[in-house]
Amino acid sequence: MSIITLTTDYGIKDHFVGAVKGKILTKIPKVQIIDISHSIDFYNIANASYVLYGAYKNFPEGTIHMVLVEAEMNDQKSFLLTKLNGHYFLTANNGTISLLADANDVLEIYDLHIPDFCANTVDLYNFIAESILKNTNLDTLGSKISYNDCELLVELRPNVADDENSIKAAVIYIDHYGNAVTNLTKQLFEKVRKNRKFIITAKRYRINRINEFYADFNTESKSLREYEGDMLFIFNDLDFLQMAIYKSDDENIGNPKSLLGVLYRDTVIIEFID
Amino acid sequence: MSIITLTTDYGIKDHFVGAVKGKILTKIPKVQIIDISHSIDFYNIANASYVLYGAYKNFPEGTIHMVLVEAEMNDQKSFLLTKLNGHYFLTANNGTISLLADANDVLEIYDLHIPDFCANTVDLYNFIAESILKNTNLDTLGSKISYNDCELLVELRPNVADDENSIKAAVIYIDHYGNAVTNLTKQLFEKVRKNRKFIITAKRYRINRINEFYADFNTESKSLREYEGDMLFIFNDLDFLQMAIYKSDDENIGNPKSLLGVLYRDTVIIEFID
Amino acid sequence: MSIITLTTDYGIKDHFVGAVKGKILTKIPKVQIIDISHSIDFYNIANASYVLYGAYKNFPEGTIHMVLVEAEMNDQKSFLLTKLNGHYFLTANNGTISLLADANDVLEIYDLHIPDFCANTVDLYNFIAESILKNTNLDTLGSKISYNDCELLVELRPNVADDENSIKAAVIYIDHYGNAVTNLTKQLFEKVRKNRKFIITAKRYRINRINEFYADFNTESKSLREYEGDMLFIFNDLDFLQMAIYKSDDENIGNPKSLLGVLYRDTVIIEFID
Repeated sequence: MSIITLTTDYGIKDHFVGAVKGKILTKIPKVQIIDISHSIDFYNIANASYVLYGAYKNFPEGTIHMVLVEAEMNDQKSFLLTKLNGHYFLTANNGTISLLADANDVLEIYDLHIPDFCANTVDLYNFIAESILKNTNLDTLGSKISYNDCELLVELRPNVADDENSIKAAVIYIDHYGNAVTNLTKQLFEKVRKNRKFIITAKRYRINRINEFYADFNTESKSLREYEGDMLFIFNDLDFLQMAIYKSDDENIGNPKSLLGVLYRDTVIIEFID
Repeated sequence: MSIITLTTDYGIKDHFVGAVKGKILTKIPKVQIIDISHSIDFYNIANASYVLYGAYKNFPEGTIHMVLVEAEMNDQKSFLLTKLNGHYFLTANNGTISLLADANDVLEIYDLHIPDFCANTVDLYNFIAESILKNTNLDTLGSKISYNDCELLVELRPNVADDENSIKAAVIYIDHYGNAVTNLTKQLFEKVRKNRKFIITAKRYRINRINEFYADFNTESKSLREYEGDMLFIFNDLDFLQMAIYKSDDENIGNPKSLLGVLYRDTVIIEFID
Repeated sequence: MSIITLTTDYGIKDHFVGAVKGKILTKIPKVQIIDISHSIDFYNIANASYVLYGAYKNFPEGTIHMVLVEAEMNDQKSFLLTKLNGHYFLTANNGTISLLADANDVLEIYDLHIPDFCANTVDLYNFIAESILKNTNLDTLGSKISYNDCELLVELRPNVADDENSIKAAVIYIDHYGNAVTNLTKQLFEKVRKNRKFIITAKRYRINRINEFYADFNTESKSLREYEGDMLFIFNDLDFLQMAIYKSDDENIGNPKSLLGVLYRDTVIIEFID
């Protein structure tokens, strides 16, 4: 049974998600529909890109991932089918694919032809999904374009200083636990760091270590319980540097937003010291 | 594989939805359960009616739609099976079907017999669903009644003035984006309008146009970005007139509720001018 | 088709749930994944235990229930497979099973061996689930231990006074409707009560009856509508004593938390009178 995933900012309250699922099941009956998220921040393409990047690799190859964020047919100029690592992505040409791939990846991107009978984005996605599942030659579905010809989100890339003594990162996502995820990957961090010491600055907070895991504190003089509410940096499950509060929550302990005022798009500076 | 959809006000936090799904899968193993919404406003039948109306037609014929809003067996006098456009609806006799159909539709409504072994609503719905899937004669499941014999929600119908120079509509739903959906359909609007000009009044706001699509603004003197936060009216995907804020959200731009104070049940007046 | 349920505090916004589902579907393609809840309060094991207890019995025997609350491999010492009433539970050894069973139940608990190739909890759960579905001898998966050897949550058990004239219960869960669920079951209440009258005290509120159903009010002198907003006690669908507000909601009527200040872990005293 084929799998189609959904990533939207439609929320879970209205009829929108049900309507999309009904349309898919009408058109492609033998499919398993899996929700990735319907709680993408409104119109936030970076957010959608990050969440999809975090989820997609765990699915079997051949999975078709539909993204409905800033993807109204009236608002968007073009729509893309991207094939990457055996997965298929259906998105508007609006930067959603920015985090999924970079120019070095082996990928195929098609700027989709929009048939007249596709009155809206879901119709188009269903038509393309059905075509993929029928092994239609993808070249018949759109015009091949290169990664750099697509709309891309600049904000998703951190800035390395020319002297390579610092990196200017930014918060690109606030997760369910209130963690502030930056756009800095462990790979880039280690490449620029070259085993040097470092200081991370976010707002007026400075810290010179990155936890290996959440409970990675010195428990000789202080119990783990006493560290609850402390700020920490950690590479998250996707290897992005993230600012967290140990045992953060909304009501008692707090989170980076409530405790430290850290918001989406805030700057995080990493300085390296010889 | 048969499809059962769920529309409830149970929320997504508790065991309630899981318990319902477990019961269905125990009774009817070969079924695909699709969530329409579990975030219907508490006890809000109009809300459930609207959301189900918006979703159901997109599913394949033969789908069984279960509604668990104001449907406690202790509180409700009777329960209905409604067959409409090839779809089956299981609801309490409490007005849920008001928006799904009107007296002119071809439909079959059964006031259900409640077998003794059905201790609660889910047991009843499962028994009926199983009977439908076994092609049981529906007449054995309840007594046929007419649409006008059912409990109906008056609030879901707009009022046309006797002189047909105005319509008094009402907000029946606030969606995920904060849009205020009224009970006025495009069909009724155009029928009464007869190509006349019009003024829409909601709270202290007056506007004399309806956008064709969200971004349908005059961009000669002002960029689209500058329209963010502006109020607009539009016929939504279900052809109901809705008040919206261009690019509305909770945090930055705002929505009709936060910006204009528009609430569920507020009045919207449309006056036609010769 | 086998069923796997998920109970987590991951929320529905991030990639976490999608990633788990993708991993399961990659490893065990012919499975139906059902969400019980992803909105467990952060790190709240009692909450997870209660919600799972409420849902699991409704599923068919053979269902595998995965719990991902306080279950990080770095933080937890051990993980359990519990077999009870034909159901399989995968949890950290952190008290999650406290409410599912007690020492009198017929159950099998295995302290799981963690294979080297299981880098994280989901890998471990998938490996065990796959083994169960292949009918692997459970004794090869871990070491059998007894209920009392497991970590247990003391807070989930009410205290009966030595003279059996009172019970000290506690609020263990606040549900979607704002109901405050206590840890007192109907079974224990009736056993201690021995047909005596009683007074329930919660905060500064005292009440001497328990409703049979929500709308179980005296409607001779007052209409049901006039009871909206009144406090009541009722044994809920799981037979736990719960404090409720008739027709509670967040916006208009209010709920026990907003109206009476009742919070998680608050004490509820039941006194019996001869």
